[in-house]
Amino acid sequence: MIKVKVVGCGGYGGVGIVELLLRHPQAEIQTLVAATETGMPMSDLYPHLKGFCDLPIYTPDDPAAQEPADVVFFSTPDGVGMVQAPAELAKGARVIDYSGDFRFNSADDYAEYARRIGRDPVHKAPELLPKTVYGLPELNRGAYAADQRLVGNPGCFAMSCLMGLAPAVAAKLVTFDSLICDCKTGVSGAGKKATPIHHFPARYENMQAYRLSGHQHVMEVERMLGAIAGEAVPVTFTAQVVPVCRGILSTLYGTLRDGIHLADVQAAYQDYHRANSFVRLYDSKAAIGTAHVRGTNYCNLTIDVDERTRRLRVVAHIDNLMKGQASNALQNMNIICGLPEDTGLHFPGAYP
Amino acid sequence: MIKVKVVGCGGYGGVGIVELLLRHPQAEIQTLVAATETGMPMSDLYPHLKGFCDLPIYTPDDPAAQEPADVVFFSTPDGVGMVQAPAELAKGARVIDYSGDFRFNSADDYAEYARRIGRDPVHKAPELLPKTVYGLPELNRGAYAADQRLVGNPGCFAMSCLMGLAPAVAAKLVTFDSLICDCKTGVSGAGKKATPIHHFPARYENMQAYRLSGHQHVMEVERMLGAIAGEAVPVTFTAQVVPVCRGILSTLYGTLRDGIHLADVQAAYQDYHRANSFVRLYDSKAAIGTAHVRGTNYCNLTIDVDERTRRLRVVAHIDNLMKGQASNALQNMNIICGLPEDTGLHFPGAYP
Amino acid sequence: MIKVKVVGCGGYGGVGIVELLLRHPQAEIQTLVAATETGMPMSDLYPHLKGFCDLPIYTPDDPAAQEPADVVFFSTPDGVGMVQAPAELAKGARVIDYSGDFRFNSADDYAEYARRIGRDPVHKAPELLPKTVYGLPELNRGAYAADQRLVGNPGCFAMSCLMGLAPAVAAKLVTFDSLICDCKTGVSGAGKKATPIHHFPARYENMQAYRLSGHQHVMEVERMLGAIAGEAVPVTFTAQVVPVCRGILSTLYGTLRDGIHLADVQAAYQDYHRANSFVRLYDSKAAIGTAHVRGTNYCNLTIDVDERTRRLRVVAHIDNLMKGQASNALQNMNIICGLPEDTGLHFPGAYP
Amino acid sequence: MIKVKVVGCGGYGGVGIVELLLRHPQAEIQTLVAATETGMPMSDLYPHLKGFCDLPIYTPDDPAAQEPADVVFFSTPDGVGMVQAPAELAKGARVIDYSGDFRFNSADDYAEYARRIGRDPVHKAPELLPKTVYGLPELNRGAYAADQRLVGNPGCFAMSCLMGLAPAVAAKLVTFDSLICDCKTGVSGAGKKATPIHHFPARYENMQAYRLSGHQHVMEVERMLGAIAGEAVPVTFTAQVVPVCRGILSTLYGTLRDGIHLADVQAAYQDYHRANSFVRLYDSKAAIGTAHVRGTNYCNLTIDVDERTRRLRVVAHIDNLMKGQASNALQNMNIICGLPEDTGLHFPGAYP
Repeated sequence: MIKVKVVGCGGYGGVGIVELLLRHPQAEIQTLVAATETGMPMSDLYPHLKGFCDLPIYTPDDPAAQEPADVVFFSTPDGVGMVQAPAELAKGARVIDYSGDFRFNSADDYAEYARRIGRDPVHKAPELLPKTVYGLPELNRGAYAADQRLVGNPGCFAMSCLMGLAPAVAAKLVTFDSLICDCKTGVSGAGKKATPIHHFPARYENMQAYRLSGHQHVMEVERMLGAIAGEAVPVTFTAQVVPVCRGILSTLYGTLRDGIHLADVQAAYQDYHRANSFVRLYDSKAAIGTAHVRGTNYCNLTIDVDERTRRLRVVAHIDNLMKGQASNALQNMNIICGLPEDTGLHFPGAYP
Repeated sequence: MIKVKVVGCGGYGGVGIVELLLRHPQAEIQTLVAATETGMPMSDLYPHLKGFCDLPIYTPDDPAAQEPADVVFFSTPDGVGMVQAPAELAKGARVIDYSGDFRFNSADDYAEYARRIGRDPVHKAPELLPKTVYGLPELNRGAYAADQRLVGNPGCFAMSCLMGLAPAVAAKLVTFDSLICDCKTGVSGAGKKATPIHHFPARYENMQAYRLSGHQHVMEVERMLGAIAGEAVPVTFTAQVVPVCRGILSTLYGTLRDGIHLADVQAAYQDYHRANSFVRLYDSKAAIGTAHVRGTNYCNLTIDVDERTRRLRVVAHIDNLMKGQASNALQNMNIICGLPEDTGLHFPGAYP
Repeated sequence: MIKVKVVGCGGYGGVGIVELLLRHPQAEIQTLVAATETGMPMSDLYPHLKGFCDLPIYTPDDPAAQEPADVVFFSTPDGVGMVQAPAELAKGARVIDYSGDFRFNSADDYAEYARRIGRDPVHKAPELLPKTVYGLPELNRGAYAADQRLVGNPGCFAMSCLMGLAPAVAAKLVTFDSLICDCKTGVSGAGKKATPIHHFPARYENMQAYRLSGHQHVMEVERMLGAIAGEAVPVTFTAQVVPVCRGILSTLYGTLRDGIHLADVQAAYQDYHRANSFVRLYDSKAAIGTAHVRGTNYCNLTIDVDERTRRLRVVAHIDNLMKGQASNALQNMNIICGLPEDTGLHFPGAYP
Repeated sequence: MIKVKVVGCGGYGGVGIVELLLRHPQAEIQTLVAATETGMPMSDLYPHLKGFCDLPIYTPDDPAAQEPADVVFFSTPDGVGMVQAPAELAKGARVIDYSGDFRFNSADDYAEYARRIGRDPVHKAPELLPKTVYGLPELNRGAYAADQRLVGNPGCFAMSCLMGLAPAVAAKLVTFDSLICDCKTGVSGAGKKATPIHHFPARYENMQAYRLSGHQHVMEVERMLGAIAGEAVPVTFTAQVVPVCRGILSTLYGTLRDGIHLADVQAAYQDYHRANSFVRLYDSKAAIGTAHVRGTNYCNLTIDVDERTRRLRVVAHIDNLMKGQASNALQNMNIICGLPEDTGLHFPGAYP
């Protein structure tokens, strides 16, 4: 059994990976760590886990929190993983980090990312950056080393945009300066911490755009698309929040290059995602929504062409807490531990 | 493997049992039948099941629908099971019916039930009534025959009331003429069919009582409690709907008998539910809600005494589509097929 | 024009009275005061008021906050009004307080109230208690003095319980030891402050009971019913929260006295509420919910008798922020300023 | 007093105009007509109107429905107004139609519109088309005749797109082939009729795109923008539904022309909307959402420029049932009846 430590178990990303590990046939949770809400069983913090995960939650400096593990998930905000991961790696663990800390392979890229979002551009563990991999298997499977030990799990919005746009960029279906990502997220994307804008009465009958000045996920979208394109691919990105709990609906636009029509688009998407068992493709008539991926690792893509205006339109559906976070992290664990990618992930959601 | 047929697969009770069977280690879905929305794969009707359950949905009179099965679930309204179950039983199947058709053991009891809710009091298969069992294992496990072949799955509201009141009646904690069940359900309890009162704009910011004149689940509550008490136990019952999808919150009241205090109540409940692994008991300080049982077979009970007014107050939490319907039906399948009760049911929900 | 000061303008009770005052023909808002979120226009805090109420929000110790007014609303928690109201009264204002500070007419009653909810039992302005009135016009209109200058606006839950039970107690329809109030509130009842349990993801698909050990509104229900009955009337009270924003649905139970039947009940309710233009009575067949009083000063009551169990059942519907708080406060202003009770309040809500 | 007839009073557009007329100082409701749910008082269909609008609902062929009125609102689907309006106009009424029937000034334009959405391209009253006006005062005030008698009220999505894009097109801020409208609507936009996709359980935790093949509102957007630009302005348009009741959030994109920067954009928008009292402009830092226009005639616009990708981004917020329908219709009534535009419309919404 793979022994797992979860750092940051108290947030939605933490409880999500705990739930998934409970049903994983080859992993077991060994240690739970959090910065706040510690000293109690996990099932006190999350009563639905009573009888399933009653392990104590340790503070990061508790001796029990130092126990070596085979895999450590850092379900923590920017700046935590880069400080704590080196010690875990030194103890022999493989590390999967949810934040922006390990999504880039150079100190320069990290610095640009950090500057865009107003953080300290100096990475605390720059020696690790060449060794990390951007953990989006469907696009980047080939970049994982045979003995990959460090993974930067993608941002949830970025995940949806990249799954939806990579085929179009790879096949040069669209002009590279025409891409727009109009993204809507459920409220859980903002995390567990109570804030005035996500207080139920403020949110239940409200939709709004936010962080128009620049969302932290744009940079990784541009970096990956640029790598695929072989040239810079700037993206206009809009983050919006609507009153669902789980779900991202990203509507992605690009101007079709001359001569490209629906059949070309469909062929390119089928080809690109052929080996990606968690991607399902639909045409514009399919009556699907985010509810149909809720609780799962799937990304459903509606592929559509507006011939009248010569635009590609792709609608990407994911569960922001699953393919956008915890279940993708588990998929990464499977890969770097040599298991089939879908181990413990091959299940549908519950409806309604 | 237990081969299963689901009649009425298109409703919420049907898709619920399909989802559960997909993760059950010893059962497989063989045949899907429905009266409407047939002739398509199950995954066209429920896109989240694409790749998991792509079986066709047959009409009841399709020859393929007649194939014998080991277990047949009738996820159908009153009046269907009593007509179709005899043929399935004759073919050797075990039958679990979701409706009121097989919740009573005599034609007289059925007639009283039917009269209360304005249905034809004549049962279509009265010879089966002595052979059925009221399928609430936590209260009625002893009544299942060694080779039980027919089960009447309880009503969702009844389930919550009985789990919460049976210990109090059994231990004579309360006076038998003082019981009040104030029940709130999520909207999925009304089924999949679109109706004006559950149209999203009419429901999203609304709560209301309904069927004040008499809900169909009252009779089975009174019948079971009466059997436990050895005398008639009339119950005042209020059905209310609130804008959640899944969940029943039943607040149950009774007047304490002289000399009964909190410690007696707690002891009685712990004793009664000791062997019931799907029941979890809480005191009045626990911060739990229906979200903590969502998607599971659990019934969480908050046990409380108001000494000032000498009343017992029990708050029962279930998922109306799970313990209130499909997962309890699967628990029944496990029992009558000789499997451990919690086979395929031992999992927590997902949060949030 | 009546010049109005609102202390505590930043909360839901504050913005509610501001909205109402904006459409009141004989009042104008003069001064806005709050303890937090000050120094900005009201319309920065509440953007929907841009162009309608751009007055600055002053801190309580700002000289501008001291300006005398004709009416002062204290939309503040327990403990504020009793400290600040004396100065406003001394300056000649009439005062309407939303908290428990002025709902009782004696220091003893206040002390009992305070003890029940764990507050300091010593009132800070006991000399004012004989001069205040419990501001529920529909029950207590006769108790307002000709020159009433101080009003304690009722609690939202208490409002719904009292409107629904007072007729039954006054006409002795029910036994006085049998009353149960099963109350459900929308989330806005908990106020504007963001808290973990009302964070959207924690609340959107959840219902739960809370404060089972004793809600702060029980005492005023018992005190008023006791005054009507001429003897003590203990009440079992359960507070529950469901994911709507606005609305209280209180289901009220009592055991019918011998010889009392539905016609007696209906007659008693019609008689009691004849002069109360904001009360609308319905029978058990009416398809009404809290949505039908949302945004208004109305209290809709469904009157029902369960003959089988000999119980009275009344379902009270109010908007917790309106009849449960701000619009009832305005009704009080109208009364103590000599205006028709429904001035500025005679409007229906918006649907859906 | 202006005597008003509402045809189609039973839908959300009908009850919306009824609510507004009840508070209008110079209009009174005279006749209510509907095709279904007739023969009862309006307040039976909409209980919140009890005591405010208890008028009977007549069928269209009832003699009482024929009574002449000063203004007739057709809150009816496509195809009704064009058949019934001529008789009302002949009786001297002014007519405001909510559908696509009178949004175009020529039979050819109507035919193109009808063909795009699969309707009969032959208009039933083509002689009226030159006499109608596209009823979006903020863009089209100058096109109303001195004695305008017929108005085609805009589509709700079109309203939001046009308010947000007209200034950019008028001032040539963007290239005309670059416009994308990514629109999200609340569920009430689909009307009052219960449908499976808007059944509460199917909708509450779901967002989805729909009618990707072509929404009925695109044509009027292109027609108006084309008229402003003096050339064809094709628009890529995406309709999406999210689980709020009321609200449209339209995120509008266009590629900036060379030399255009944020200051130019802001100046152009301020200039264009200077006389439009129901438009409020915000910059990208404003924390506003659809909740802040709910229940009102306002359109809030966030004006933003993404210099990095050289794109204009405008976020338009309206209440789809108000500025998107009923309150804009009332604004039209005010204009064609010679009243100030904001008569009966100058009020903020309620929050939360």
